Amino acid sequence: MEQEPIRVGLMGLGTVGSGVVRLVKNHQEDLWQQTGRGISIERILVRDKGKERSVQVDSGLLTERPEEILQDKGIDLVVEVMGGIEPAYTCIREALEEGKHVVTANKDLMALHGAELLSIAGDKGCDLFYEASVAGGIPVLRALTEGLSADRISTIMGIVNGTTNYILTEMARKGTPFADALAKAQDQGYAESDPTADVEGLDAARKMAILAYLGFHTHLALDEIPVQGIRDVTTEDIQFADQLGYVLKLIGIAKRNEGKMEVSVQPALLSGEHPLASVDGVFNAVYIHGEAVGETMFYGPGAGEMPTATAVVSDLVTVVKHMELGVNGRGMVAPYCEKRWKSPREIFSKHFLRLRLADEAGVMAGLTSVFAEAAVSLEKVLQVPISQGGEAEIVLITHTASQHQLETILRRLDEMPAVRQLMSHYRVEGGNG
Amino acid sequence: MEQEPIRVGLMGLGTVGSGVVRLVKNHQEDLWQQTGRGISIERILVRDKGKERSVQVDSGLLTERPEEILQDKGIDLVVEVMGGIEPAYTCIREALEEGKHVVTANKDLMALHGAELLSIAGDKGCDLFYEASVAGGIPVLRALTEGLSADRISTIMGIVNGTTNYILTEMARKGTPFADALAKAQDQGYAESDPTADVEGLDAARKMAILAYLGFHTHLALDEIPVQGIRDVTTEDIQFADQLGYVLKLIGIAKRNEGKMEVSVQPALLSGEHPLASVDGVFNAVYIHGEAVGETMFYGPGAGEMPTATAVVSDLVTVVKHMELGVNGRGMVAPYCEKRWKSPREIFSKHFLRLRLADEAGVMAGLTSVFAEAAVSLEKVLQVPISQGGEAEIVLITHTASQHQLETILRRLDEMPAVRQLMSHYRVEGGNG
Repeated sequence: MEQEPIRVGLMGLGTVGSGVVRLVKNHQEDLWQQTGRGISIERILVRDKGKERSVQVDSGLLTERPEEILQDKGIDLVVEVMGGIEPAYTCIREALEEGKHVVTANKDLMALHGAELLSIAGDKGCDLFYEASVAGGIPVLRALTEGLSADRISTIMGIVNGTTNYILTEMARKGTPFADALAKAQDQGYAESDPTADVEGLDAARKMAILAYLGFHTHLALDEIPVQGIRDVTTEDIQFADQLGYVLKLIGIAKRNEGKMEVSVQPALLSGEHPLASVDGVFNAVYIHGEAVGETMFYGPGAGEMPTATAVVSDLVTVVKHMELGVNGRGMVAPYCEKRWKSPREIFSKHFLRLRLADEAGVMAGLTSVFAEAAVSLEKVLQVPISQGGEAEIVLITHTASQHQLETILRRLDEMPAVRQLMSHYRVEGGNG
Repeated sequence: MEQEPIRVGLMGLGTVGSGVVRLVKNHQEDLWQQTGRGISIERILVRDKGKERSVQVDSGLLTERPEEILQDKGIDLVVEVMGGIEPAYTCIREALEEGKHVVTANKDLMALHGAELLSIAGDKGCDLFYEASVAGGIPVLRALTEGLSADRISTIMGIVNGTTNYILTEMARKGTPFADALAKAQDQGYAESDPTADVEGLDAARKMAILAYLGFHTHLALDEIPVQGIRDVTTEDIQFADQLGYVLKLIGIAKRNEGKMEVSVQPALLSGEHPLASVDGVFNAVYIHGEAVGETMFYGPGAGEMPTATAVVSDLVTVVKHMELGVNGRGMVAPYCEKRWKSPREIFSKHFLRLRLADEAGVMAGLTSVFAEAAVSLEKVLQVPISQGGEAEIVLITHTASQHQLETILRRLDEMPAVRQLMSHYRVEGGNG
């Protein structure tokens, strides 16, 4: 006997929503083989029914009223691809309360309200999946929750924002200044007209919140993650990094040692040998170090219509399989680790500093004594062969030091008259750091 | 109420088995949180109870008789890490017939008898998982079956043998000849004293059989996969490849277009830009191209005690979760695609050829006419500036050509008196190939 198809309500018909429609249509036969059921998109929420669409849909499916999906008892599953907090939050909450399963690509929402929504889903026996919310087409959430479930994760480092990685790749390859690289990203459709969330690192922070939640089994709030964007990165910084054997990337860093964790997003130098170092352009990658497994990396497209739709529809396949087995909403592992943050004395890395100094006798001695007094030694020093207006430039990389030590050094340098300007400083990762 | 622990019978206490014992012990608390059950290793099959062990186990658990595990009604789950076909095959069959779930790291067995064993498992309502059999710690089988389940996979390319990748990396970095690099791999414990299965590409072929089975949803037999090893690769080949912007790797290639597939293992040139090109040493990586998702890559340790144990125990966690939900052996997707192989006229790539020619007038003209007559044009030609004993050497890369065209060319070159020797030829992948 042929089973009824799964009835899906699609909320949102932008880039990802259009991809979902296309994928469900083009891969119908494969999806049937995977699930033993047909998948039928019964209704689609849009803001404006009259708008021209790049994807062909029966106009009778379109609605501008969320309740036509949420209160339709015939709809089993809601795919939320509107993005943003509202009305997505209210819609997903209501869908779960109505006993509908939910698949979402919404990182903003999951980073902010994920724990609450997952708990409602569990109570209601509903699935709530969100693989597409982090690193688009890369199934990295499954890797954390299933493939590496036996391991204890010690490090998650991610290039999880394609826009900024594209900009930094352009700056590195062609020496294009930040503003021009951003404009090019906007021209190519890789950056939005308001690029704030990407450029300021907020988008990456949301994804890191989700990764740390799953990897470290602990709740954490988005505003607990220190975030620094890439607006102040210069092509000179990138060139100096290159001379020293490093690349500059916007990196989300989540580490845990002895039960304490750190999670941050910032432009950082990565050793050229690091698996993440060769991830260029709009690609994303997540590097995961587990105590037992060691180094792994998951690489792929971080955004885009079809990659993101693949993650959404793969989640949808899992929901349908769970429906067949009658196990929706079960088997989720709730966070079980206490949230303990590292102090600045417990966060370690190497550091890159670029300084403009007075070009006079004794300055280098004074500079090195500042590092020595903070008990930080130097790994590499690059004396830049320019001296203009009585100033010299110096670029250095420290050996491993705590954030507290770095702050002490920065404060002392600020007090030195011979230090004319701290041009830039970055965290350094990889190698033996 | 505290639940009984899951009772595990471990078959094999070599490298991977010892890792499983360590991991279950060290991560006990985490495993309990993941599954809500304890995991207890009740009995361990070994060849020699008296042997010294690197891992501490209660000697009362050891047995030399498989039936003490297989016929023990109290054992829920068998972990098979003996390797090889027999007695593993008989043991796994019997375990499944007895209604025990099985987790195995055995690629030889799964490549040869996987379809049959999976079918028995399904009939008996048992799980049979084998994530550890391919690419050790990298959860790539889950990526294919779950994370990318909505997509249609068009290419799987793998560096899935760490031994040969280590040897080729040594040859490339240090110019070490093959025999010395192999000896070094043996010294380091990366190659066995009989390195045949690794060096001849057989190990990689077994893994590619499993990947193609899952990616293309079709049965295929191991002996249908053409295999070529790395014994004849020279450091000169690697250096010429480098000069042309390529690296030489042992690559498993599985491609499917329009319902027809090709699966092979061979040393091949990879464009330096390809995500697999920077995978060095004993690391493994699997590159997967899906029609919708595009390019993804999964990177990590391909072997070793703890990485492989991570994959085994993560599978074990999944079995326990399934036991809690009562869904073992269900939800597997049986192969549903017809097996159709490409003919040599349908397999396309670029090709690298290295030839020794008579150093006399008209030879180059004769050579180029052979390619022209086969309708194959040349992308790059490298004239090697040596001429000894009246011979010259030439290295070239063709544009995309079929395997049939290549064979025609090789036959014609063999007939040309001026072509003194075909030194080597390799398939070329990546770039726009």
